[in-house]
Amino acid sequence: MLIVGEKINTSIKKISQAVESGDSAFIAQVAQQQVAAGADFVDVNAGTFVEKEVDYLPWLVKTVQSSIDIPLCLDSANPEALIKALEFHKGEPMVNSISLEEERFHSLLPVITAHSCKVVALCMAQTGMPTAADDRVSVASELIERLTSAGIALEAIYVDPLVQPVAVDVGMGSAVLQAIPTIMERFPGVNTICGLSNISYGLPARRLVNRNFLTLAIAHGLSAAILDPTEKHLMSNLLATQMLLGQDEYCSDYIKAYQGGSIEDN
Amino acid sequence: MLIVGEKINTSIKKISQAVESGDSAFIAQVAQQQVAAGADFVDVNAGTFVEKEVDYLPWLVKTVQSSIDIPLCLDSANPEALIKALEFHKGEPMVNSISLEEERFHSLLPVITAHSCKVVALCMAQTGMPTAADDRVSVASELIERLTSAGIALEAIYVDPLVQPVAVDVGMGSAVLQAIPTIMERFPGVNTICGLSNISYGLPARRLVNRNFLTLAIAHGLSAAILDPTEKHLMSNLLATQMLLGQDEYCSDYIKAYQGGSIEDN
Repeated sequence: MLIVGEKINTSIKKISQAVESGDSAFIAQVAQQQVAAGADFVDVNAGTFVEKEVDYLPWLVKTVQSSIDIPLCLDSANPEALIKALEFHKGEPMVNSISLEEERFHSLLPVITAHSCKVVALCMAQTGMPTAADDRVSVASELIERLTSAGIALEAIYVDPLVQPVAVDVGMGSAVLQAIPTIMERFPGVNTICGLSNISYGLPARRLVNRNFLTLAIAHGLSAAILDPTEKHLMSNLLATQMLLGQDEYCSDYIKAYQGGSIEDN
Repeated sequence: MLIVGEKINTSIKKISQAVESGDSAFIAQVAQQQVAAGADFVDVNAGTFVEKEVDYLPWLVKTVQSSIDIPLCLDSANPEALIKALEFHKGEPMVNSISLEEERFHSLLPVITAHSCKVVALCMAQTGMPTAADDRVSVASELIERLTSAGIALEAIYVDPLVQPVAVDVGMGSAVLQAIPTIMERFPGVNTICGLSNISYGLPARRLVNRNFLTLAIAHGLSAAILDPTEKHLMSNLLATQMLLGQDEYCSDYIKAYQGGSIEDN
């Protein structure tokens, strides 16, 4: 299970302020906390700045990678910002995200084929958002086929089935949960990834809903998740779930996390 | 999802003391709390008393059913205690449990065929406890075939796949999780049930492990669980999970529980 830390996103006010004021110490601290909590990748997103994204995204890459030595998830739909950010990135990044929307697909494809990177393939069609599991599988299949035809390895692709709120349609949870194994079985070697928080939009006690959704998604084979690794209840669920599915030999990761004070049981 | 409240068990000191002293008010209170928290059945177990079980189990049935109007789960391997308890029981009880152990099977079969009841069929073989999923499926299959041959309806059978600690063998979680849908697909109409707490035996933060196991078991199709319905975190997980699996139309059970103060999100 690959964990992408989601906290460096300018839609969060403190991050936005730090980016605008060039507060590299604060950004570095948020990055380090996520790595300490178990992040394998750190997501950087400056999308709220629109025009300035092309300057801020590369600045985030430099700032974060001068404080930690793991790769980043470059979270942008702006090819120009991505090209500049990739210039500064050390190691193999993840690019988040390409989709079947024509403009986005054609503008990002040359960017991701010009670099060795992992790529998030979002199940968004030209015609709109998917609803049923089948829609997700068919959008994913077309995306995977177009990406592999362009020379991208299946193993480098992380399909995001596009999580939507259960409060809007109670079938939205099952739709994603069914799509995950179907896509992974149809294209052996491909990965799946998702964010969690959309699932609980409009509901009370959202973190409870998000962490149960994570448990269910892991049980359905999810390869990676975009989440806040410093949220102790969420990471406790993740570790307990992996153990219960037999993915933690001798329960050693779980017990080590408990001994390190990272397990929350109240 | 059928919930069997597990709190009236003489292995718990306060229950044992109340049973010995005939404190019917305390027993009634524990029963009522479980019903208020969502129990569909209330388990009664006086097994620690061995010889006196034959008096205490019927007393528990009378005492509990004079305070609540739902059926009980008569939790005993003692046919004499069960026969006496069944005399006093109102409605259709659940009997917990028969198994493939020869003596137990032959002594309990006449008891459960003489009454209209649901029956827990524990995956314990004459030769010992199952380890892999396949062992559970084969013990379950033999038990189901013998019970249905004796005239018990598939729908009245609740197979307990016998939860064992992941701390002993990290495959014990998956073994149960795989056995649940396999048994239910092989015998359409049959139910599954399990207790949770054995899964976390020997581990720290046991309640965290138990509630994640419940989420996983529900995702694999579990029909019923023996648990403490007054444990708020556990019931919050249960409600969130059912909603995420599309089993809670308009999210109404979840939202109602939240409004009633039953959802814990910390």
